[in-house]
Amino acid sequence: MSSAPTQSHIPPRKVVVFGGDGFIGSHLVDTLVAGGHDVSVFARFRNNASKNLTHLAGRFRMLPGDFSHRDSVAAALEGQEAAYHCITASNPVLGWDNPYGEIDHELRNAVQFFDLCTQQGVRKVVYASSGGTVYGPGCPVDENAVPRPYNPYGICRLAAEHFLDYFRARNGLAADVYRIGNVFGPRQPLHASQGVIAVWMGHILEGKTLQVFGDETTLRDYVYAEDAAELMTFSLRDLASSGTYNVGSGQGTSILRLLDMFRAVVDKPFDYTIQPRRPSDNPCAILPSGKLLGLCPEFRFQDLQETLRRTWEHLKANAPTND
Amino acid sequence: MSSAPTQSHIPPRKVVVFGGDGFIGSHLVDTLVAGGHDVSVFARFRNNASKNLTHLAGRFRMLPGDFSHRDSVAAALEGQEAAYHCITASNPVLGWDNPYGEIDHELRNAVQFFDLCTQQGVRKVVYASSGGTVYGPGCPVDENAVPRPYNPYGICRLAAEHFLDYFRARNGLAADVYRIGNVFGPRQPLHASQGVIAVWMGHILEGKTLQVFGDETTLRDYVYAEDAAELMTFSLRDLASSGTYNVGSGQGTSILRLLDMFRAVVDKPFDYTIQPRRPSDNPCAILPSGKLLGLCPEFRFQDLQETLRRTWEHLKANAPTND
Repeated sequence: MSSAPTQSHIPPRKVVVFGGDGFIGSHLVDTLVAGGHDVSVFARFRNNASKNLTHLAGRFRMLPGDFSHRDSVAAALEGQEAAYHCITASNPVLGWDNPYGEIDHELRNAVQFFDLCTQQGVRKVVYASSGGTVYGPGCPVDENAVPRPYNPYGICRLAAEHFLDYFRARNGLAADVYRIGNVFGPRQPLHASQGVIAVWMGHILEGKTLQVFGDETTLRDYVYAEDAAELMTFSLRDLASSGTYNVGSGQGTSILRLLDMFRAVVDKPFDYTIQPRRPSDNPCAILPSGKLLGLCPEFRFQDLQETLRRTWEHLKANAPTND
Repeated sequence: MSSAPTQSHIPPRKVVVFGGDGFIGSHLVDTLVAGGHDVSVFARFRNNASKNLTHLAGRFRMLPGDFSHRDSVAAALEGQEAAYHCITASNPVLGWDNPYGEIDHELRNAVQFFDLCTQQGVRKVVYASSGGTVYGPGCPVDENAVPRPYNPYGICRLAAEHFLDYFRARNGLAADVYRIGNVFGPRQPLHASQGVIAVWMGHILEGKTLQVFGDETTLRDYVYAEDAAELMTFSLRDLASSGTYNVGSGQGTSILRLLDMFRAVVDKPFDYTIQPRRPSDNPCAILPSGKLLGLCPEFRFQDLQETLRRTWEHLKANAPTND
């Protein structure tokens, strides 16, 4: 864990992570446990088993539940100082095909969650938003850009961000929003319709041909999950402050450059085909994060090629039970 | 009607106005009928009767229906070139107390409406959005400002605007959005929790004390409904273009200045009390509209005090059946 520097001045907090057994959430739980916080995790925990946190057994509280279920969510929030929202059943590709699901489930459950936070006396909500879809086509974009999301997934994430302003105005709830770039790293699902690095690695493991959507102009800001998790602990320094922060390196990597890095990192031959960008994808997503990095001067993003290598090594060591 | 200049270059269109029997919608229907368009109106039309369009009987098509009812909406859209969305069951005060209603009804019905427009081959949607609540606290704000809505009513209106970008990207649906200031004029409901001019006039008619929420810093951009309607016909010039436009004079009138104008215009004595601004209200809403006015160089906003006088005269002549 590289969590020590950012968390060095943070007093121990009572924190619950919704979706903490998922991909980004589990890295956050790693970081929070390492930082000495009192951590609870709300997730499905089917058959009372964790998917991604077995290595932390006994070091966090398991709160099994369904995120749409009001009473379960309320019970999980009782007595918490801060609550992280890292839970989703969707992604940009699913949202593109089913806008109603984004409204009826993603947005509605988020608003119910914020509402219950105010009712239970939670001091601060931390919302893991999406940098790639919230801004829409602009590139690169900092927090002063006018967001023009056009994917239902991003539209409803932005609306959820705005609902945090509502609960702050109405109830005094503090909230931080992290607009995170294209996150990757160990534990990312291999068979989802997003997360190009995980999907490619899964295909390579299975001997399938990679599908490369886009070209030199298809730029993404890849963020290692461990780095995103460390930055998100910034919210625990001051439970009364609120802010919206990009989380990205500010560097665009084209999908073809990523392919080159795969050739350098992956010790297994693979085939690929290059196809046009999908309509659900932004042409470009680069997220300058000077606002947050200025507040975390000790933080450094880890090297992309090196973290790709660690992701691949982790995947090989854990396949096929990892998905 | 002052609709001639703006509509002079518009070919006759087949147009349906959803909510065309309501306050803003009925002024739009007046303007569209005067402009020679083939106009249908979708509204509740309880007992097959119109509330606000009896003076136009026989000059438009009545399409009674419930806006949440998919099949009724789809049938009303059949064969239309353009569809205006001027329908709402909410307002900022209701939305403040019931955020879920904004998500489940206002936003969801709007998205269903846009979706059905694409399915029925409508070329262009025109969306009557809200200038006061979509932008949030910034003031004055043009279309390049970052919207920070914090009232559920405005949050879901902005999300609906973004969904129009989605349907444009996915289906090629053209759409204009009008972010309208504080509209007033004949036919505005007197007993709603918004529309300060109508509410005050209703109170004066009934001999009640006016409640003035705010002070010199509570600034609003009042727009006469007839002016807003005329500007919204701009969308019919080109059914393939899309844009987002403020509709406001760009002039802020304080709530106390409005009170002065009432003293000058209203020929009936009245009492008032001054109270703090309500939390659901923005401190200030001023909407510079250079973007739209540059495209409609022949248009002039009518004088505020004069249109207040006309609103009052209309109300006196039509009370008490007007509400």
